[in-house]
Amino acid sequence: MTAPLVSAPLAVADFEERARNVLDAASWDWLAGGAERERTLRANRAELDRIALVPRVLADVSACDTSATFLARRCALPVSVAPVAYQRLFHPEGERAAARAAAAAGVPYVVSTLTSTPLAELAATDAELWFQLYWLKDRNQVLRLVRAAEEAGARALVVTVDVPVMGRRLRDARGSFALPPSVRAVLLDESSPPLAHRRAPGASAVAVHTSAAFSQSVTWADLRWLRQRTELPLVVKGVLDPDDAVLAAESGAAAVVVSNHGGRQLDGAVPTALALPRVVERLGSLGADQCEVLVDSGVRGGADVLALLALGARAVLLGRPMIWGLAAGGEQGCRHVLDLLGAELHHAMQLAGCPTVGEAHCLRTTRLCEGNL
Amino acid sequence: MTAPLVSAPLAVADFEERARNVLDAASWDWLAGGAERERTLRANRAELDRIALVPRVLADVSACDTSATFLARRCALPVSVAPVAYQRLFHPEGERAAARAAAAAGVPYVVSTLTSTPLAELAATDAELWFQLYWLKDRNQVLRLVRAAEEAGARALVVTVDVPVMGRRLRDARGSFALPPSVRAVLLDESSPPLAHRRAPGASAVAVHTSAAFSQSVTWADLRWLRQRTELPLVVKGVLDPDDAVLAAESGAAAVVVSNHGGRQLDGAVPTALALPRVVERLGSLGADQCEVLVDSGVRGGADVLALLALGARAVLLGRPMIWGLAAGGEQGCRHVLDLLGAELHHAMQLAGCPTVGEAHCLRTTRLCEGNL
Amino acid sequence: MTAPLVSAPLAVADFEERARNVLDAASWDWLAGGAERERTLRANRAELDRIALVPRVLADVSACDTSATFLARRCALPVSVAPVAYQRLFHPEGERAAARAAAAAGVPYVVSTLTSTPLAELAATDAELWFQLYWLKDRNQVLRLVRAAEEAGARALVVTVDVPVMGRRLRDARGSFALPPSVRAVLLDESSPPLAHRRAPGASAVAVHTSAAFSQSVTWADLRWLRQRTELPLVVKGVLDPDDAVLAAESGAAAVVVSNHGGRQLDGAVPTALALPRVVERLGSLGADQCEVLVDSGVRGGADVLALLALGARAVLLGRPMIWGLAAGGEQGCRHVLDLLGAELHHAMQLAGCPTVGEAHCLRTTRLCEGNL
Amino acid sequence: MTAPLVSAPLAVADFEERARNVLDAASWDWLAGGAERERTLRANRAELDRIALVPRVLADVSACDTSATFLARRCALPVSVAPVAYQRLFHPEGERAAARAAAAAGVPYVVSTLTSTPLAELAATDAELWFQLYWLKDRNQVLRLVRAAEEAGARALVVTVDVPVMGRRLRDARGSFALPPSVRAVLLDESSPPLAHRRAPGASAVAVHTSAAFSQSVTWADLRWLRQRTELPLVVKGVLDPDDAVLAAESGAAAVVVSNHGGRQLDGAVPTALALPRVVERLGSLGADQCEVLVDSGVRGGADVLALLALGARAVLLGRPMIWGLAAGGEQGCRHVLDLLGAELHHAMQLAGCPTVGEAHCLRTTRLCEGNL
Repeated sequence: MTAPLVSAPLAVADFEERARNVLDAASWDWLAGGAERERTLRANRAELDRIALVPRVLADVSACDTSATFLARRCALPVSVAPVAYQRLFHPEGERAAARAAAAAGVPYVVSTLTSTPLAELAATDAELWFQLYWLKDRNQVLRLVRAAEEAGARALVVTVDVPVMGRRLRDARGSFALPPSVRAVLLDESSPPLAHRRAPGASAVAVHTSAAFSQSVTWADLRWLRQRTELPLVVKGVLDPDDAVLAAESGAAAVVVSNHGGRQLDGAVPTALALPRVVERLGSLGADQCEVLVDSGVRGGADVLALLALGARAVLLGRPMIWGLAAGGEQGCRHVLDLLGAELHHAMQLAGCPTVGEAHCLRTTRLCEGNL
Repeated sequence: MTAPLVSAPLAVADFEERARNVLDAASWDWLAGGAERERTLRANRAELDRIALVPRVLADVSACDTSATFLARRCALPVSVAPVAYQRLFHPEGERAAARAAAAAGVPYVVSTLTSTPLAELAATDAELWFQLYWLKDRNQVLRLVRAAEEAGARALVVTVDVPVMGRRLRDARGSFALPPSVRAVLLDESSPPLAHRRAPGASAVAVHTSAAFSQSVTWADLRWLRQRTELPLVVKGVLDPDDAVLAAESGAAAVVVSNHGGRQLDGAVPTALALPRVVERLGSLGADQCEVLVDSGVRGGADVLALLALGARAVLLGRPMIWGLAAGGEQGCRHVLDLLGAELHHAMQLAGCPTVGEAHCLRTTRLCEGNL
Repeated sequence: MTAPLVSAPLAVADFEERARNVLDAASWDWLAGGAERERTLRANRAELDRIALVPRVLADVSACDTSATFLARRCALPVSVAPVAYQRLFHPEGERAAARAAAAAGVPYVVSTLTSTPLAELAATDAELWFQLYWLKDRNQVLRLVRAAEEAGARALVVTVDVPVMGRRLRDARGSFALPPSVRAVLLDESSPPLAHRRAPGASAVAVHTSAAFSQSVTWADLRWLRQRTELPLVVKGVLDPDDAVLAAESGAAAVVVSNHGGRQLDGAVPTALALPRVVERLGSLGADQCEVLVDSGVRGGADVLALLALGARAVLLGRPMIWGLAAGGEQGCRHVLDLLGAELHHAMQLAGCPTVGEAHCLRTTRLCEGNL
Repeated sequence: MTAPLVSAPLAVADFEERARNVLDAASWDWLAGGAERERTLRANRAELDRIALVPRVLADVSACDTSATFLARRCALPVSVAPVAYQRLFHPEGERAAARAAAAAGVPYVVSTLTSTPLAELAATDAELWFQLYWLKDRNQVLRLVRAAEEAGARALVVTVDVPVMGRRLRDARGSFALPPSVRAVLLDESSPPLAHRRAPGASAVAVHTSAAFSQSVTWADLRWLRQRTELPLVVKGVLDPDDAVLAAESGAAAVVVSNHGGRQLDGAVPTALALPRVVERLGSLGADQCEVLVDSGVRGGADVLALLALGARAVLLGRPMIWGLAAGGEQGCRHVLDLLGAELHHAMQLAGCPTVGEAHCLRTTRLCEGNL
């Protein structure tokens, strides 16, 4: 299922074409697509490309150190592997391969509520696991997931708050996307298989399932309720408005992830590179910076990571590129992607005169006009 | 006359191609075209695509309510069907089909002065009718139209103020556009048929007729004169300058429509998404917000409606997309368009964390540069 | 030599293709080209297209009046025909045809120092003549030209100050452009014919001639010297910096023309639509608005004229489009261009709610980003 | 090895295609390429094209003088030839040809640490030599290079500070670029030849060598150490952050070069035309303008030089275009490039009303949007 690598990939971005070549069109579209007209999908990239960095010089970068502390853990990179559903769509080893690669790279791996691999198998890897929580309609199911995550040794709960319903991903709807029988949400097995696997003309079966399963009435009160029922730090993923970041901090969140779900939810939502500095500034001005700010959506290489650090992020979640690696080469592909990402970040930090991630946070940036891209 | 829908439309915008496929080139150009070089036609879309929304999260959106009050009426959507002339050009059922669909969707239907269907037939539908008034050269004719509208049960008068002459729509002029015999302005039947149906090389017969029929000397004094002669609320359509909005409010208008006539009048006029917030702010700063602000020009889906609500509009008028539906499928096509629009708005409100239209007015926006589109 | 007009031109811009079809490539390039990489040539258009107007409504535009007063003369339009050299390149009737058309349209005609038609022939038309003065190396020749202009009845002297040397127009240089024997600068006949007609590989013979003939050491002192030697009002053409506009006013100029010579001199010079408001504001803030501000470079239709009036210009000089008309149809072509320009301006004023040019000066403008074009 | 010039080049930029035609693909890519996705390479050009100049008029430009004083020397142009490694890759005469051409043009020639021609041969030309210093891992080697430069008569040391490691130039890596046996870093001959000549799949041998040879731990302390060991003025090349410019001044630098290494180091680094004015302003505001500001990266002609002077640069370093000339025609090609550059600058100064470089520094500029390019 993995293609022979005829020429070595030199950059994280090189894996995109490799993945496209090995995946069937439906899986590719499901991975690559965004919501509606894909404006936010494109805007995420455009805005990242518009950030110009002002590097420093004559710093000693001979022992450049990419390690970073976030959520009170020291990691090899200011990076976490983002939660992605149904990873066995992309490789038979699915989540297990990705988690092993994350462990090898020294970064956390966020398990999706829609994992297609049982938690026990992931707990058996060396990975630092975080658990991503979609809020199901039944609160007891929510608590059951939290307990399962705790038992599997998860170190954090990532509560995704931007999917009251699934975004309208027209590629999937036009292709009547449905999961193959071999891939299913193993944590939800009582309820989910029929819906997510049942092809419906003009609709994504995964979206149909999601709308049936996820709650549309979660509020900050629910987050505080959860806060009282687990010791795990809470990460609120999907925040774009600074007021929501403040509410997250006030609700006891240890971190927020500035995210538009990779352009897959509200089409027209602000790109994260524009939203990030406003969230950082607001939390900072309130003295609420004990609530850390992470970010995702659109990251394709180490230069993007450095730019987002300069804009104030503590760490960056990596989604699609990890799956490119998974599709192209299973665990080895994932390792390769993370190795390249680390090397690119290390290289960019050297060229930007940043011996440590701390200096990266101090880099000046300029926003370019379109012509500079 | 309607094409079979080989694959179901998933978005309002899908109807554009359907309409194009069933319409003859001249009718399509008349519908789709703008004035002169069509700069404003394009700018309307570009500026809407440039608005990025900052969604909120963890609001209970399980009972998301798209209904809105404008002109003192509660409607199912913050939407009205815009006045469009000669709708029987696009489907034999013309205005009647569109009005019925509006009634089904629970939104007002604005009848054009240039309706090709008699008012009595439209009054026989369940639609909430508004009447759009072009100011004819003869004041008695103006009053006659107003009385006819009142008798037909119209709930508002929409006075279009941006057509002292018709914009130079070069597609029509180059194609020597003229109305077919079967389609005519039934409210103007004494005067109009000959001119609007007489093909003239290098000219649009409709423009020739319009220039002959419409007054070029209407002023705010005329509006105040009208104000004293009807109980119906007056909506001034075609306002772009904040000073004119103030004049409208002072002249007793219940609302203005920020509009550049869909890019069909002054080519080079400001796109409405840029003009709208300035008008809203001016009226607000004068405490004149009893004069409501509606908007049109360029709206192609529910995401656009949400963006315009965020920029301060109370409601949005939908023009061309309604006609796409009419051309593609008569009343059913119109219903389909309005259903999709409502679904798209409902979906976008859920993803933006807006349980009601009131919250939509509070969303933050950011204006992107071009590269983000 | 004139092409049959197979379909009537509906806009000034339609004449561009007509002219291109009848002209040989070398003459076309000489007319259409700009300096070096033609950045300013393109920027002039891009910046005009970026101006959005905010029209007014409910003004009585039934008697819309395009006439304007500039240089103390009432003209039918706020327009003058710009000086263009060697007009017999484009039509055997050359300057005479253009001057007659200007007279018919009621606008001034600016005769170039490099006219290919004798002044006497132009004085025999009904045109209001202005004389454009290139500053020759020999001051006596300059005075001789001024006297000749006075004798021919010129009403103003337009001193072009942006050609100390001719811009490097690479189209002409690569094509080794030279004048045909039949076309020559009749006012300079002693010195010029050999140079401007002698083909030189990799050079424009006209540029060679110009550099030989024109002074590179003219200063404001020379302008004041001239001011004392003629009663004619002086118009300083080629001003872009507000400080130079002030110097012009202090030197006794009756007007400046904000111009980059249609993108034919300094490539990279600021587009005139950007420079204009700054010049207007500076003169206004100094109470020096007795010095009028005209503008040219990039104007292609009535909408452009209206936009430039809104930015503060008293009048606009029309260059290339007039020559399109000349090439396409001699005097009739020129008349047609000016008629269309007047009609377009009249139409745009009606749609913008401007009964007179005075109201046009009060229109609000907004500068769009690129995507709006 | 040089191509026949079938038509004379009229602009510096014309040499690009000539060079491309005579060079093998690997050498061309090495010369033309930038780091990673080449964003900064493109941004350098885009930002230069976005600078609009506001020319002055009626200055006497008959004796326009392009000479400039920088680093306390009067030169014929405000230009220096930038250091470029391994120039014998492009022509058998390599650095010697280029240095002779610089001498003929009256501008300094900066010898690269990676020169492929011995210093003695360059000292034998009439060129004013500056020596570019890469900081090698062994401080004794650094001092040895400095002494060699002093003995060869160099007038300045240009310390390049933006290459702690070589940027990832993917064209070279994908092509497994390595130096041919005939070209080597003659000043480093003990250590370098094996590495830079050894082809390695997926890597640039030159990058491998550079990383092995250059120090990654140079700091401002090293610069001060060097400052005490030579009388030569120090020029710090590769500064983009104003704080680093201040540090350079405080460390005794006579000048900084605002540079992103032609887009070859940190991809995503700010274009120099954006960074330059901020550096100039900072040094000026600190009264540190005894430290001069030079600039490079993206310059392709005299208009660019004038724009950078207007943005505050004392002089401009010319890199790739000089090599275009070298490849196309050896010393004659280099001379031709410098002659054209001088002519273009002279011409642009005339058209901008700048009799001297001092006036060029006073020109106003405006930053255009993309559409103006």
